Amino acid sequence: MRRPTIMDIARAAGVSKGAVSYALNGRPGVSEETRERILGIARDLGWAPSTTARALSPGGRVGAIGMVVDRPAHALGVEPFFTQLLTGIETELASSDTDLILRVTDDAGAEADAYRRWAAERRVDGVIMVDLRIDDPRVALVEGLALPAVVLGGPGGTGALPCLYTDDASSVREVVRYLAALGHRRITRVAGPAEFLHTRDRTLAFEEATAGVGAAGDTVHADYTGESATRATRRLLALADRPTALVFDNDVMALAGLGVAHEMGVDVPSQLSIVAWDDSALCQLVRPSLTAVARDVVACGRQVAGMIAEAVGGAAPRSRETARGELQPRGSTGPLEP
Amino acid sequence: MRRPTIMDIARAAGVSKGAVSYALNGRPGVSEETRERILGIARDLGWAPSTTARALSPGGRVGAIGMVVDRPAHALGVEPFFTQLLTGIETELASSDTDLILRVTDDAGAEADAYRRWAAERRVDGVIMVDLRIDDPRVALVEGLALPAVVLGGPGGTGALPCLYTDDASSVREVVRYLAALGHRRITRVAGPAEFLHTRDRTLAFEEATAGVGAAGDTVHADYTGESATRATRRLLALADRPTALVFDNDVMALAGLGVAHEMGVDVPSQLSIVAWDDSALCQLVRPSLTAVARDVVACGRQVAGMIAEAVGGAAPRSRETARGELQPRGSTGPLEP
Repeated sequence: MRRPTIMDIARAAGVSKGAVSYALNGRPGVSEETRERILGIARDLGWAPSTTARALSPGGRVGAIGMVVDRPAHALGVEPFFTQLLTGIETELASSDTDLILRVTDDAGAEADAYRRWAAERRVDGVIMVDLRIDDPRVALVEGLALPAVVLGGPGGTGALPCLYTDDASSVREVVRYLAALGHRRITRVAGPAEFLHTRDRTLAFEEATAGVGAAGDTVHADYTGESATRATRRLLALADRPTALVFDNDVMALAGLGVAHEMGVDVPSQLSIVAWDDSALCQLVRPSLTAVARDVVACGRQVAGMIAEAVGGAAPRSRETARGELQPRGSTGPLEP
Repeated sequence: MRRPTIMDIARAAGVSKGAVSYALNGRPGVSEETRERILGIARDLGWAPSTTARALSPGGRVGAIGMVVDRPAHALGVEPFFTQLLTGIETELASSDTDLILRVTDDAGAEADAYRRWAAERRVDGVIMVDLRIDDPRVALVEGLALPAVVLGGPGGTGALPCLYTDDASSVREVVRYLAALGHRRITRVAGPAEFLHTRDRTLAFEEATAGVGAAGDTVHADYTGESATRATRRLLALADRPTALVFDNDVMALAGLGVAHEMGVDVPSQLSIVAWDDSALCQLVRPSLTAVARDVVACGRQVAGMIAEAVGGAAPRSRETARGELQPRGSTGPLEP
């Protein structure tokens, strides 16, 4: 069976080769009716779309990047981080007319299946990996699939995969020293899930930094949702020697913590300082506005998308560091009043 | 050129047909090294992945649904609505192992190009359309491409495309009557962009409902961001006969409005009532908590994904109505004090 050519389609449709090319490539130049007719004939003749043809040639590309996000749906629903990241990735990919294939699941098995299937069926040219866990089996899986991949995170725990990392430890130190300078000696962090690499890295840095300034520095874990942070904050503020400063691992949890402080009659910032990480518009909209560690998450998304484009293009992108988060003091932090 | 078979690949790789099948279908049963070697040989022989084979057969499917979101990146970054919708869509699609291809752009031309290319290259089996504009040219475009499509919105303005709509007018009436019962007669709505169909539908219903209770009912437009709502609210609260109740078209704008009221010393709710539409965790986290029109956006996402699956399967799904938003009174609304 000979593969049909554009000429075959043009002949069957009674149009020029140019018109067929316009129709098949989705470009203007033919009416929608003609386009539809040409596409129907191409399908009937078994014409292989150009992406397929390209994908079958060695080194060919399908023009799509895959990303699996394995946070629980309810956590994803309110978190600005994710949409900001997505926006950055999309902006970069769109400039090279590349699609983003997204899969949201909180099932590690389903995530592994997605990578296997994308590789086997050549649905994507490469993947962007986020939220790596400690000893994450996905690293070896993706390396084994020979699927170009870039990790947002690291630099440890990412195997031989190139990664875009940030110096969280240095931001943690900045936050802790700032709170210590304001007089705080009982500083508690309400962190994301313990199994994430980035959570562990921040926890280690937080323990070191609080010890360094002679402060008590506990970490409790929540799941990035306001609900989980509400429960954690209520417990913490009910302690006999309650913390005088709280550092939250995202903005939504910090907002929830502020709500609990109001509810329990604990004044912010005279009795309790609150720091959010990351920053977002939410932090600036509430009163008092929230002191935050601000990163340009959209820029991170652009960078990581640029790296995966390099990897797909055959280069081996070097791991690189993105700008670290900067402390942005606002109304929710202040000197501890006696 | 004969199309290579799985047997050809097995022979060239020196493995069983079963091993080739495991490798090509991304299933366990072969080592990652063997999988990689088999995929390399399949590629060299020009073996067509199964999705391509399926896509080329009449009525075949590629197992992907496309969605273009054309809100500006900065608006998308903080809005829970979008991630909740995405979560619902993903949950439903994942159950049938279908990918979601996402494109974020605020360029109408780029959006049209994406639809044309997806159709021409058969990258998707169908599309979900959101945020239709008044006289939206995308409706005719997608109809012309003969691409299965379902619209979230309507029921007007969606041509012959099936849609999932909600009775916004009835929720608007409920909000306005409730505010009127609390004594409010100057009610202003801070709405989304005027060009969206859903904005216009709510505006018409709002004008009718406020007139029905003898209240002044103005609508001003913002772009769903906190920044735009901050500016709009400052202008409104600086008026000599300022409104006593504000209805915002999303939660982020309502949160911003609450911040401005604090900043300008206008007490909520004794001097100003605030209603958010939609509801989200944010509304419950701030103090006072925000009265909101609550819809189950995740469920909407599941429903619209179910409809596109029907359409792709060859059925012509009927347009249907999703549960309407219900008023959820909280601390930000109250009787107008003299």
